[in-house]
Amino acid sequence: TVSDKHSQTSKDAIRPSCKVFFAKDPIKIVRAQGQYMYDENGEKYLDCINNVAHVGHSHPDVIKAAVKQMELLNTNSRFLHDNLVQYAKRLTATLPEKLSICYFVNSGSEANDLALRLARQYRGHQDVITLDHAYHGHVSSLIDISPYKFNQLGKEGKKEFVHVAPSPDIYRGEYREDHPDAASAYADDVKKIIEEAEKNGRKIAAFIAESMQSCGGQIIPPAGYFQKVAEYVHKAGGVFIADEVQVGFGRVGKHFWGFQLQGKDFVPDIVTMGKPIGNGHPMSCVVTTREIAEAFGASGLEYFNTFGGNPVSCAIGLAVLNAIEKEDLQGNAIRVGNYLTELLNKQKEKHPLIGDVRGIGLFVGVDLVKDQLRRTPATAEAHYIVHLDRILLSADGPHRNILKFKPPMCFTMEDAKLVVDQIDELLTGMQLAQCQTTPKMWKHKGTFTFSTHLYRVLLGHN
Amino acid sequence: TVSDKHSQTSKDAIRPSCKVFFAKDPIKIVRAQGQYMYDENGEKYLDCINNVAHVGHSHPDVIKAAVKQMELLNTNSRFLHDNLVQYAKRLTATLPEKLSICYFVNSGSEANDLALRLARQYRGHQDVITLDHAYHGHVSSLIDISPYKFNQLGKEGKKEFVHVAPSPDIYRGEYREDHPDAASAYADDVKKIIEEAEKNGRKIAAFIAESMQSCGGQIIPPAGYFQKVAEYVHKAGGVFIADEVQVGFGRVGKHFWGFQLQGKDFVPDIVTMGKPIGNGHPMSCVVTTREIAEAFGASGLEYFNTFGGNPVSCAIGLAVLNAIEKEDLQGNAIRVGNYLTELLNKQKEKHPLIGDVRGIGLFVGVDLVKDQLRRTPATAEAHYIVHLDRILLSADGPHRNILKFKPPMCFTMEDAKLVVDQIDELLTGMQLAQCQTTPKMWKHKGTFTFSTHLYRVLLGHN
Repeated sequence: TVSDKHSQTSKDAIRPSCKVFFAKDPIKIVRAQGQYMYDENGEKYLDCINNVAHVGHSHPDVIKAAVKQMELLNTNSRFLHDNLVQYAKRLTATLPEKLSICYFVNSGSEANDLALRLARQYRGHQDVITLDHAYHGHVSSLIDISPYKFNQLGKEGKKEFVHVAPSPDIYRGEYREDHPDAASAYADDVKKIIEEAEKNGRKIAAFIAESMQSCGGQIIPPAGYFQKVAEYVHKAGGVFIADEVQVGFGRVGKHFWGFQLQGKDFVPDIVTMGKPIGNGHPMSCVVTTREIAEAFGASGLEYFNTFGGNPVSCAIGLAVLNAIEKEDLQGNAIRVGNYLTELLNKQKEKHPLIGDVRGIGLFVGVDLVKDQLRRTPATAEAHYIVHLDRILLSADGPHRNILKFKPPMCFTMEDAKLVVDQIDELLTGMQLAQCQTTPKMWKHKGTFTFSTHLYRVLLGHN
Repeated sequence: TVSDKHSQTSKDAIRPSCKVFFAKDPIKIVRAQGQYMYDENGEKYLDCINNVAHVGHSHPDVIKAAVKQMELLNTNSRFLHDNLVQYAKRLTATLPEKLSICYFVNSGSEANDLALRLARQYRGHQDVITLDHAYHGHVSSLIDISPYKFNQLGKEGKKEFVHVAPSPDIYRGEYREDHPDAASAYADDVKKIIEEAEKNGRKIAAFIAESMQSCGGQIIPPAGYFQKVAEYVHKAGGVFIADEVQVGFGRVGKHFWGFQLQGKDFVPDIVTMGKPIGNGHPMSCVVTTREIAEAFGASGLEYFNTFGGNPVSCAIGLAVLNAIEKEDLQGNAIRVGNYLTELLNKQKEKHPLIGDVRGIGLFVGVDLVKDQLRRTPATAEAHYIVHLDRILLSADGPHRNILKFKPPMCFTMEDAKLVVDQIDELLTGMQLAQCQTTPKMWKHKGTFTFSTHLYRVLLGHN
């Protein structure tokens, strides 16, 4: 986040390298509660995207835990503290047995960077396999392995130690929903990449992937893919890093972690966490096996993180875990997530602009297309649709045409209905407009309630 | 910070890659206030080292500001927020005019990594000149430029794009207190490094240095050194990065920033901040010029930091700045710092083990030597001396023989006297022991009050 002292208004003060919502007329949010945010005029916004405010904005129990510990002690971990131990036990209890060592750090970026350091130290290899369109963080080492970023830098963006595997996207990728075994087919691509790399004398340190790709377009990899990839990567002497920064902490409902969707037989070697872990407090964690941690320790380099694992962060982390449990937010993610997906699927039947609805729990994506057959990304349309009326939604993916839902976990059925009704209204209006400007096969449905602004968007005048 | 779920006690739970104080019998601190920490038995410890708890542990105004904002809103900076703008204005007001753009991030490591990205983007150069023994953070890109770390990895530790300049240490370096112009001499070494690098076709992106080296041994560079280095680095197309993570925010007393000790004519191109900025809350900042920020923006890569610059962090940052001002902590740093240095200098006259006392404000180092002439580092002795009675002090530097003072800024004259009296007592006892075991020219002074443990330390049996 960037600010310029010479600016007079807060709008100007946010510098161009950071995108703000509603960039032309940004809103100034002054308070938030649960899944709602309020601007300076008291207007209420429904938040469909803030996966950081995981247990709800301004959660009272989280604040209480923070204050209680701040009043007592907030120091680095050169001293022992029970919070650290309790928190590590609670957190690892959500994970398979062999993931037993926690490194507490301050952000998803610090977590993924440390994961790479752990992987590279473990066997002395350097190369990393990453998925196309992946984003793993903003520090130098992660820009290197984030095609979502380095592709923007042109040909020189990709370093020689980085290998990009296709995203296991069964809607837009090479192997689609009609493929008999897309999981194996995508995993075989990773195998080929490994073989090619080894032929060139390179050695794989790690395969890294979000358990579900978020910026990459709300991609849910087919079950079995991670197991097969892990097998090939292990054979090559590398480790499997599951990046749960965006999707962890019960968002998928049925499980606490996204990678668990792949099946009980899959256990990553390293799991990285972030965003939701502290409900907005800057903290994160890397969990790994004793074997990998010991190899890291054996390097002789002490790892010290000033703020990581401080008693306040740990108290907040514990309060978040408690809230998830106490308020059955995983159950809520299943119930509301199913309902949201169901509503969106009904919209899909109704609106040809919706090419695909995919989701699990409160992680849902809607792939907008100009053409159902060719699946041409409907980028401008997605850009238009996210400008809902007092609802915060965003579009992402390589073509920025995927509507992205990842709301606070207290999102309700009513909230789901509200946002889908608005999308329906917008889509209906757009189809009408489409018919009136460039008549096609679209059916007339709903009421036309839009200003000429709509036409300008669709006709590219905006 | 690392934790292991299989451990039964908090002592075992802290993994080997993180050092704790009093490693053989670590203390468990449960609360802290001002410059004092308290263990689980209610024992009080004087904190001489915690520069993170800058305005004092558990500062009530900082907590109040945090709570007030947490109850309202804590979100990412995709929205505008006044706290961000106010804070950026207050922070940049402490800096020279041209340093006007703030990037808010979460840790000193994130700050230094971003500083490197800014520098590299600015002119497209890659190489970095760093000082010997420097430590700039724990992410991959910073281990690369931290000889304090990469030297432990053997010859392969240093990457080809990294150039190590001698630390401008006028006590142990090549040019010492008796040199007519040590500042120019050390800067000339940097010039030679640049020439050598250019001869090999390499291009300098940045020179990075702590304004005073902390882990490197509490080194205060001679005034004028930075100006000359900046001149050479600018000529080579690089920028000057002043790392203020350890030493900023008024610690030096006379100035708000350490680099200001060099003179009014010196302005770095990038300043990085950390530790004290949030009094323990995970936050940090990079400040740079409009020109450098614009070059970064022009890359087309959006910079987004989930937690950076959130309203809670900004509220805390503002409260810290207010406390420094309201409580005249800079004035206190001058007064108490001068007194501490004076007391330590008296000890120097008395104890030949003290080779050098150097300090400015509440940033003070005591270089312990076995031999005043040869300045042989007294490492074991320093290790012994930091184990004071209910006083937290540490030893650092390449030989771990420098006693390091960087206490909370509310440190008092009485605190200074207490710690120096204890050091006096220990040094006196050590000299006595020395005389009794390996008689030398030491003078008998003070009372001998030590157990046989002392002998074991000195004779290397421990």
